[in-house]
Amino acid sequence: MTGAESLVRTLASNDIELCFANPGTSEIHLVAALDRVAQIRCVLGLFEGVVSAAADGYARMAAKPACTLLHLGPGLANALANLHNASRAPVPIVNLVGQHAGSHLRHETPLASDVEAIARPYSGWLRTSTSAGYLGHDGAAAIVAARTAPGQIATLVVPADVAWSEGGATQKISHLPLAPMPCGDVIEYAASLLASGKRTGLLIGGHALHGRGLAAAGRIAAAPNVKLFCPYPLCRLERGCGLPAVERIHYILEQAREQLAEFRQLILVGAAAPVAYFAYPGKSSVITSCECQIHVLSRPEEDCVGALEALATAVTGHNRSVSREKLTRPAMPGGEITLAGLSAAVGALLPENAIVVDESMTSGRGLMAATKDAPTHDWLGNTGGSIGIALPLAVGAALACPERPVLCLTADGSAMYTLQALWTMAREGLKVTTVVFANGDYAVLKREFSALGTPGRCAAGMFEIGNPELDWVQLARGMGVPSTRATALEDFGKALQNGFASEGPSLVEVRV
Amino acid sequence: MTGAESLVRTLASNDIELCFANPGTSEIHLVAALDRVAQIRCVLGLFEGVVSAAADGYARMAAKPACTLLHLGPGLANALANLHNASRAPVPIVNLVGQHAGSHLRHETPLASDVEAIARPYSGWLRTSTSAGYLGHDGAAAIVAARTAPGQIATLVVPADVAWSEGGATQKISHLPLAPMPCGDVIEYAASLLASGKRTGLLIGGHALHGRGLAAAGRIAAAPNVKLFCPYPLCRLERGCGLPAVERIHYILEQAREQLAEFRQLILVGAAAPVAYFAYPGKSSVITSCECQIHVLSRPEEDCVGALEALATAVTGHNRSVSREKLTRPAMPGGEITLAGLSAAVGALLPENAIVVDESMTSGRGLMAATKDAPTHDWLGNTGGSIGIALPLAVGAALACPERPVLCLTADGSAMYTLQALWTMAREGLKVTTVVFANGDYAVLKREFSALGTPGRCAAGMFEIGNPELDWVQLARGMGVPSTRATALEDFGKALQNGFASEGPSLVEVRV
Repeated sequence: MTGAESLVRTLASNDIELCFANPGTSEIHLVAALDRVAQIRCVLGLFEGVVSAAADGYARMAAKPACTLLHLGPGLANALANLHNASRAPVPIVNLVGQHAGSHLRHETPLASDVEAIARPYSGWLRTSTSAGYLGHDGAAAIVAARTAPGQIATLVVPADVAWSEGGATQKISHLPLAPMPCGDVIEYAASLLASGKRTGLLIGGHALHGRGLAAAGRIAAAPNVKLFCPYPLCRLERGCGLPAVERIHYILEQAREQLAEFRQLILVGAAAPVAYFAYPGKSSVITSCECQIHVLSRPEEDCVGALEALATAVTGHNRSVSREKLTRPAMPGGEITLAGLSAAVGALLPENAIVVDESMTSGRGLMAATKDAPTHDWLGNTGGSIGIALPLAVGAALACPERPVLCLTADGSAMYTLQALWTMAREGLKVTTVVFANGDYAVLKREFSALGTPGRCAAGMFEIGNPELDWVQLARGMGVPSTRATALEDFGKALQNGFASEGPSLVEVRV
Repeated sequence: MTGAESLVRTLASNDIELCFANPGTSEIHLVAALDRVAQIRCVLGLFEGVVSAAADGYARMAAKPACTLLHLGPGLANALANLHNASRAPVPIVNLVGQHAGSHLRHETPLASDVEAIARPYSGWLRTSTSAGYLGHDGAAAIVAARTAPGQIATLVVPADVAWSEGGATQKISHLPLAPMPCGDVIEYAASLLASGKRTGLLIGGHALHGRGLAAAGRIAAAPNVKLFCPYPLCRLERGCGLPAVERIHYILEQAREQLAEFRQLILVGAAAPVAYFAYPGKSSVITSCECQIHVLSRPEEDCVGALEALATAVTGHNRSVSREKLTRPAMPGGEITLAGLSAAVGALLPENAIVVDESMTSGRGLMAATKDAPTHDWLGNTGGSIGIALPLAVGAALACPERPVLCLTADGSAMYTLQALWTMAREGLKVTTVVFANGDYAVLKREFSALGTPGRCAAGMFEIGNPELDWVQLARGMGVPSTRATALEDFGKALQNGFASEGPSLVEVRV
């Protein structure tokens, strides 16, 4: 068995079902091996930023890693920005990158590059395999590393000669590492904080915002003076009618500071202390008030769900769930396109069990309020602030949950980064309804610049992307995705309904 | 003066005229400074891979650097693949990357990243500026580094607080470094090799393939038994009617080996010894025969043009140019689209003084033969093998030479990597005529795989990108570029002629 085949068989026998790929010549033996192992489905991205964000979206929803397949240093480099986001989610990804054969590396060749150096900034685990005989073992080690809580990017560099040589052996992982529980004292201390009566926030990140983690958080929040928060950079939040309400911390520094002003205690569960995205002259980056004490219930690498459950039991003495609220949706609005109307339409029409992928930026500020009590759904956000995640994240989410409708909400500027994902949606027939909020601006930057004065010709040219206008109807059709432009809210509602009813992808552009 | 303004004024007073940019919040003070300095023109790319390749194309044609402006680690990461290509050209680029303010870096923020680590693999020079008072000086040092022969990527990381603080001072560079001449012995030794009568190749890379360098090479090639070669990865080759013929080394290993089989001496001028792009089981990567001795006339960092001129004088004893040949073009073909017909049409219609940007991959194998004796033109290729360079390279070339027509020849798979460049062409009204060779395949990979057998379902899925079909007519129009599909050679010829006559960009898709 070649090294390549041993790696692919190792992946398949350890629950890797999907490979997001854009291989090249140096990975050709891995492609040949994938051809012989039917258990792994390969999904092609026409750009590697699609590959990495799709692997992220898949991991968020499947709660296990997919693998990637990337071509040398440049292919990896193209994947990096969305690996940045994935590393901040954080999610498990088995990141496979080809490298030249050892004998070839001593030459100055056009594609020679230091793959490890390029991988290192975003890899929690990194190894270059050195022989076919070890490659299965290395693959298994990569899976274990990727699945070590809270999930990380495990990059395995595979030299071409290691892949093509004979001597490979498949490796089966006997057990995956379990995240450690925080010690009992920490739980008790958190319980005493909650009992103090002080206004307390519970800031929950990572993978504790759905299922059991969210349910436990809901029981804790039944105590007086406690409120649930999630960071603005949001991995996956289950929400909607009947689920505990979790408030997202605002993006804008001043708003976030006001939101947290009254809180005197903040308990962190798999989340970092909240700070601004950016620094500003003469301003502190810290969002919490100086009277707010910050405590850690569990670090991201600990068992955050277990910690929440233990705290819930300690606080309430029981495991009963809190009362559930009724489904309330906005009425379906009509008339002219407005941001409020678009949000209301999404709230009115979002189907049960949908996955919402949100990178709507400034245009989408009203969306979460409008969908607060919609049928239950998952909400996935941009975790690392590198724009261009939504379209490919939706690809991965749809592949993880083929039965669920996916609603992808994206700003035009962000969508341009990885628009190639539309092609993969069409090719794989994914149930993704994409909304492009086309404001023709990098509106976030315009807002940031306003503190410095009025943009002149050069600055305005850096913020305004509406000249020439991007025509998303044509861009989508050019990649095989049916598309339409909504010029009134009725059209928009119709486009959403058609999208949700369709078995494949669709796109609607709204100019806002 | 703020640090930001001192940097921008330093750039402007040291001959930086263009800034290819996609800034973010942490670079907003640099944007404000650019607003106040009219000498630098800012060109926005909607994805950073466009920014870096445009800076590359500009540098190849302007023979001086542009600067970039990139947003933190992720923005830089998106630029990396085309910085890989630029580092192999090699060309000078002043690569400006924002970083968080120092006080902000101690927090765990979504966009925190190790910018230096991401920059290092492709930066010949790298510095993070530490204060506004030094920023002008650091900018000048970056320009000197970028312009040190043969040109390199000089990355200057600018923390936001360094940019916004007062205390900046503009720095004027007193003199740029000159590339050293190889010593006289080396020239004499090369002359003795040429006098030996052995079949000798002169392999010329980098910036010595146009103007004075090419003229000197032509005089050397007038000696018997000498032939001029350039590497397959081609920075810039001036060619066509009346210019010395330079043969490009073939991409395919076997063909390249045959091409060089008869040569017993190879003299390198700013080029590396020729090796295959990739390694293959049981095959050597070396292209030259084992009887061929390889000598270095000048290394890339030396004065390659000066070395060629000295060698020409040593060999011929005079500076006369060789005889010039007549303009011979293929006749304009008609009928069905064929690869040969497309090449002939380009040869028949290429205007005088055009810049050809070529990433046509397998579809374009006949193009150089068909344009060999066309009116003089420059030919720019993919220097690092990372696909997705052609469209943005054409942007940069067109901005460097606004009066010259640019013909951009690209494969469909490559073009999908950085298709956002079409928008910049439309926005800036660039005279670029783009031809997309749409074969619906990663044909190079299909060919490589053929040695391993017939592709199965998975492998075929990795190589075939025609399902769904990419519609380049719609993709181009979606970004504001007029476009058409040619279904016969007559249409293709017409589209080329219209493109060359137009003052703005256009695109023609041919299905091949």
